[in-house]
Amino acid sequence: MEDSAPPTSTTLADFQRLIRAMYFEKDVARGIDGTFMWLMEEVGELASALRNGSHEERLGEFADVLAWLATIANVAGVDLNEAIARKYGAGCPGCGKLVCTCDDAEKP
Amino acid sequence: MEDSAPPTSTTLADFQRLIRAMYFEKDVARGIDGTFMWLMEEVGELASALRNGSHEERLGEFADVLAWLATIANVAGVDLNEAIARKYGAGCPGCGKLVCTCDDAEKP
Repeated sequence: MEDSAPPTSTTLADFQRLIRAMYFEKDVARGIDGTFMWLMEEVGELASALRNGSHEERLGEFADVLAWLATIANVAGVDLNEAIARKYGAGCPGCGKLVCTCDDAEKP
Repeated sequence: MEDSAPPTSTTLADFQRLIRAMYFEKDVARGIDGTFMWLMEEVGELASALRNGSHEERLGEFADVLAWLATIANVAGVDLNEAIARKYGAGCPGCGKLVCTCDDAEKP
């Protein structure tokens, strides 16, 4: 990971819109419950790639989990950018610091 | 979700860097396996919020899942922006179309 974002770095809003353009019609027909099952399958594949996969395979599985998460957000009417801005826009939600000073036993 | 991104829309790279700045030291000490457990807990909370939660609660749970995913990516040395650019930058990975025409029984 670089210290500065490349100019082509995708925004969360753009990614969510891209996934919406690609899949929204199918996603709505499938509904949240059915879509969640796909997310779970991809989370399992991510676990597997983290244990035994190549860097390339890990890239693919992270992308898939992000895509299914965006899909569920689309069906649920949740704006991912708003979600992270509210929760993390002002630092760690636990201690309020940019570099977290929460106790290690605590979330997060 | 709006048709155009607000100017403040966060990039995936910025978000991953923010989570890194907040938590990287703890994340590395915990390792991928321990961090994955936290991700799973948050995925469970997201499921619960999708079934019974308010819109506000759903926003919070999506943010938490994204944050733990970014954390694991940081520990695994995976760039989330690169991940989605490779997999989804050229349209649906199944059919190559912007609006997916894959068979409904197929992924995705």
